[in-house]
Amino acid sequence: MPKVAYLDNAASTKTDPKVVEAMLPYFNEKYGNASSLHSKGLEAKEALDRARKTIAKSINAKSEEIIFTSGGTESDNFAIKGIAFANKQMGNHIITTSIEHKAILNTCKWLETQGFETTMLPVDNEGFVSPEELEKAITDKTILLSVIHGNSEIGTIQDLQALGEVCKKHKVYFHTDACQSYTKAGIDVKKQNLDLVTINSHKIHGPKGVGALYVKQGVKITPLFHGGDHEFKLRAGTENIPGIVGFAEAVKLASKKDIERITKLRDKLIEGVLKIPGTRLNGPRGEKRLCNNTNFSFMGVEGESIGGYLNLKSICSSTGSACSEALLEPSKVLMAIGLTHEEANGSLRLTISKFTTEEEIEAVLKELPPIIKKLRRMSPIDKVVKHVLPKNN
Amino acid sequence: MPKVAYLDNAASTKTDPKVVEAMLPYFNEKYGNASSLHSKGLEAKEALDRARKTIAKSINAKSEEIIFTSGGTESDNFAIKGIAFANKQMGNHIITTSIEHKAILNTCKWLETQGFETTMLPVDNEGFVSPEELEKAITDKTILLSVIHGNSEIGTIQDLQALGEVCKKHKVYFHTDACQSYTKAGIDVKKQNLDLVTINSHKIHGPKGVGALYVKQGVKITPLFHGGDHEFKLRAGTENIPGIVGFAEAVKLASKKDIERITKLRDKLIEGVLKIPGTRLNGPRGEKRLCNNTNFSFMGVEGESIGGYLNLKSICSSTGSACSEALLEPSKVLMAIGLTHEEANGSLRLTISKFTTEEEIEAVLKELPPIIKKLRRMSPIDKVVKHVLPKNN
Repeated sequence: MPKVAYLDNAASTKTDPKVVEAMLPYFNEKYGNASSLHSKGLEAKEALDRARKTIAKSINAKSEEIIFTSGGTESDNFAIKGIAFANKQMGNHIITTSIEHKAILNTCKWLETQGFETTMLPVDNEGFVSPEELEKAITDKTILLSVIHGNSEIGTIQDLQALGEVCKKHKVYFHTDACQSYTKAGIDVKKQNLDLVTINSHKIHGPKGVGALYVKQGVKITPLFHGGDHEFKLRAGTENIPGIVGFAEAVKLASKKDIERITKLRDKLIEGVLKIPGTRLNGPRGEKRLCNNTNFSFMGVEGESIGGYLNLKSICSSTGSACSEALLEPSKVLMAIGLTHEEANGSLRLTISKFTTEEEIEAVLKELPPIIKKLRRMSPIDKVVKHVLPKNN
Repeated sequence: MPKVAYLDNAASTKTDPKVVEAMLPYFNEKYGNASSLHSKGLEAKEALDRARKTIAKSINAKSEEIIFTSGGTESDNFAIKGIAFANKQMGNHIITTSIEHKAILNTCKWLETQGFETTMLPVDNEGFVSPEELEKAITDKTILLSVIHGNSEIGTIQDLQALGEVCKKHKVYFHTDACQSYTKAGIDVKKQNLDLVTINSHKIHGPKGVGALYVKQGVKITPLFHGGDHEFKLRAGTENIPGIVGFAEAVKLASKKDIERITKLRDKLIEGVLKIPGTRLNGPRGEKRLCNNTNFSFMGVEGESIGGYLNLKSICSSTGSACSEALLEPSKVLMAIGLTHEEANGSLRLTISKFTTEEEIEAVLKELPPIIKKLRRMSPIDKVVKHVLPKNN
């Protein structure tokens, strides 16, 4: 058995040793401020420009459309608040969905205290947003649609192109939070008609504390950070050169081959876990699911308890988004796709990365069934369960 | 002569190798998300708590009063906008000074578009803010005073305690931007009656991309980042654990001995440079000046030209704040202390760190006089200069 089976890669990933290696010279040697007009500043500026080019290319954008930030949450806040403040004379209506990350939902909630209105689109039972529903929701006050690309809990990958066409038709800015999907599912800002894209580094084996927002040229946006003229005057603050270099290196290292391998591990895990009776897979199957995501509900047990017992067996898992871990309320995403309170509470997310081994998957498939069995025996709702499940489970 | 004499430590510093060493395990081994409820999450959370404690202690604060951010600019924006949005029912008036960093000035400028008003306090010819002027500027609409602790250009260290007493008396929140002074000049949030303090890491041999805001318990503040419940619900976003660990390590490594050594180098540099005729030191002398800051004006020459020639001699310098380098306008700080346009344009900032050697100081003292002499010969305003300066200079 592996020392620790880390199956919480949607929360954060191991920084690739090659990424760390690429970062190191920027701590001790090339430590200049990229705004400084001397040799040390210049070498930092050159690294910044190279990284920007790598990341721009990965989503079919121009270099000057990539604004480096401190991560996904900053990029989401910058996108939503930035569009809201800069365009409020055009309208005060923002459309989003019921399955967004909290960085979007709580930003919208705050904007409601500042005179904005939010519509939350529903999703179907696999988590998909409908372009028709979007079209119905748009009013003459709508300035922005924000939809998560690859869902962080259930892995649903939205059809950005279809949603983008509706936005284009109605002249509504289109933002996607692509933190979970970046380098895993295709992002092409032109093809998908995207105006704003949130990406980050620590979900793709880059360092924590760095991300970016793609801002299409010509988009009217207010900075979240005012100050110096960094990042094309859109994000003040000394650029985090080692972090940015590491981020770009992680993007360069992402490969199709890894995605294929990860997808196979995902499907092996899904197949194995679904052998446990009274288990459902949350979210879609196949290509429309993030290659590294699995999410299950186990009738009659609490996700937190499963996670706790798995941890005792050195298996790291999650009951949903790491950002809501401390809260014991059922996942809003799972409720949105139609799960009951009980089903949502009995959910477990296992997320894979390129560093995940067959051995780790096997460890889960070995340890999980007896844990579920044990928890069901202990469950206060076991009477219900016994009706639902076949004997001995 | 050293390979490169790096005398731009106010722009950014070399990350201490010991800091990098402390960070490394958090990239490849302890890479969990600090919000995750498993072993990998826990080890990240423990590192976060330890770092928070170290930093809190360094300014006589409680752990839960330290909110980690991505750096000085974020902390400044968070402080100013956060107080403004949360307290606008109490008043819409903010007081700051004419010698702040752009992160403060441009944030205030933006807030003016949102219904707030700003008063900029003048400073004396050494850059000091007067508590009496502050008291006169306070109205019943004043909610916040923001004053830079150690000035980034001319090194002036404000008397926070005296200003804090005025704020306390009038129940005005008191923020200081201590990016340049942190670990160099004493900060004691209790003694100085501080409600908010901006500190950052890359000015003190920590990594770029990390900083903090001290927020006194009970202060009413709106987050700049909405999202998850991180950082006591005041700053959403996955914590940058390697960065935070490095920041705390840099704080631990800061020593009184280094300050003493840096101060000696500073005074040697000041003494040596002032031997060049027609040269003035901008900012105060002695203990009221940042230990690592020097700033000079050379009659009849442009700072940019001096910087360019020094760079050819492998000496890194600055003409002011790195954040304004690309602009060719005279420093607002130098104008605020009463310099003429011409004097402000002829300024040079040389800033020292614990890694600065005697050799580097000597390189400056050797290379600078002939550069000034040469530039003065080339100067279009040499007629003026010849009146001011003794012959042969």
